[in-house]
Amino acid sequence: MARTTERRRIVRLQGRTSSVRPDALAAEEPLEIRIGGEPLTVTMRTPGHDFDLVAGFLVSEGLVAGPDQLTALRYCAGTDADGLNTYNVIDAALAGGAAVPVSLHRNLLTSSACGICGRETIESIRARVPHDLAADGLRITADTLYGLPDTLRAAQKVFDSTGGLHAAGLFTAGGELLCLREDVGRHNAVDKVVGWALREGRLPLTGQVLMVSGRASFELTQKAAMAGLPLLAAVSAPSSLAVDLAADLGLTLVGFLRDHGANVYNAPERITVDG
Amino acid sequence: MARTTERRRIVRLQGRTSSVRPDALAAEEPLEIRIGGEPLTVTMRTPGHDFDLVAGFLVSEGLVAGPDQLTALRYCAGTDADGLNTYNVIDAALAGGAAVPVSLHRNLLTSSACGICGRETIESIRARVPHDLAADGLRITADTLYGLPDTLRAAQKVFDSTGGLHAAGLFTAGGELLCLREDVGRHNAVDKVVGWALREGRLPLTGQVLMVSGRASFELTQKAAMAGLPLLAAVSAPSSLAVDLAADLGLTLVGFLRDHGANVYNAPERITVDG
Repeated sequence: MARTTERRRIVRLQGRTSSVRPDALAAEEPLEIRIGGEPLTVTMRTPGHDFDLVAGFLVSEGLVAGPDQLTALRYCAGTDADGLNTYNVIDAALAGGAAVPVSLHRNLLTSSACGICGRETIESIRARVPHDLAADGLRITADTLYGLPDTLRAAQKVFDSTGGLHAAGLFTAGGELLCLREDVGRHNAVDKVVGWALREGRLPLTGQVLMVSGRASFELTQKAAMAGLPLLAAVSAPSSLAVDLAADLGLTLVGFLRDHGANVYNAPERITVDG
Repeated sequence: MARTTERRRIVRLQGRTSSVRPDALAAEEPLEIRIGGEPLTVTMRTPGHDFDLVAGFLVSEGLVAGPDQLTALRYCAGTDADGLNTYNVIDAALAGGAAVPVSLHRNLLTSSACGICGRETIESIRARVPHDLAADGLRITADTLYGLPDTLRAAQKVFDSTGGLHAAGLFTAGGELLCLREDVGRHNAVDKVVGWALREGRLPLTGQVLMVSGRASFELTQKAAMAGLPLLAAVSAPSSLAVDLAADLGLTLVGFLRDHGANVYNAPERITVDG
């Protein structure tokens, strides 16, 4: 069974005192993703919601846009040296038996162009995003936005026990939490939410909001865009490339969402401030 | 020139007020790493100390253990569509013209074994770590340890302006900061410190301490071990696999290092608490 936490004995130091006590840790295990039996990548993740993770990863990489394109997900029945099932390999079957495109293998591993730069990276992402985010009519009030961090934090059960997990939450424009996922890797938490939405037949996530517990990187902005989300909000700072990608796509990017305040880096017109 | 921050105009919301103002962002740009002209990987990083980043990455991957094994680092003179140098590709030359091992290509991309699990991952790392960390005679007082976060934070210049960067700092057992590096990616910050040490002829980092600003993942623990560090300390939580790897290697792993306290997950005997 998937374990999201593991217990260990630790030494707790506080000032000049020292004590031994049990402690809960966020679990981290490798997960290998295969397509049609062919290994694609390995990600270090917190076990749990693994099918969501793989489904979301496939959406983020542009291989799957709807549930009909993902015909099966199954755990590889591998055994380790002691004959125990390990449950850490998942094989995905794509519609029509599609294999991993050679170009994806190359893109995951490296880029082919000498002279790669941020603008070229953004252009390659734009070409792959199958949604017109700029046309999304989402409107959300600032007060609703300010309430998202508390809702997310209250629902973060594993973080409470370990202090070690990133969270991603999908919200309606009214501030209702639809799906929360936690992981040691922030990109995995987002993939798990997107994969849940794919498997529930909810893609694209038009008119909805994704909130993440940490920083907003280029990679998270890309994942939000591939899922059709018009607004990505983060508790902490975005990077320059995340802001540039948001501007290019027409995605509203919010950072430093805390203490009844926020920085809006692009498309602020979606957020209404009622005086 | 490398830019570690970029400025953008943002909308600042606070309660029901809204204002437009300039803001500094942590810069994020892709960097392609090549060996002998052959593309190996692309990492999203904050520009600056790029040679350190590449050198440290090569140490972390087990390709380079001393400065004599890395004969040259050079920027690829690529030009973009406007004819501007992009400076985002670095080619490394290894001693004897060594090329990228096929096995590394495969390991970066994926693992070959079905039934991959945490224990097998740890065993594959242990086989690659060229240092006997358990034999390292480092001793550090708890008071010195408690002082590291303030020293690190005080030296974090880019974080102060953007709030968006991870930091890694190399310290002596007496608490002296030897090298600080910042990056949007925590793994890059550590690679930059390790690469600095390689290029300064300081590897392995016997008897020294690495402190990181965020969580302690498996990946960061692996990088510390490959550099020969006997102690890794983090402001926040470690993962279960990081703790297991530290236990396997005899590395002291410290988490939640804040407010004159700390959790010690392995090898606490290196930390002396004087009553």
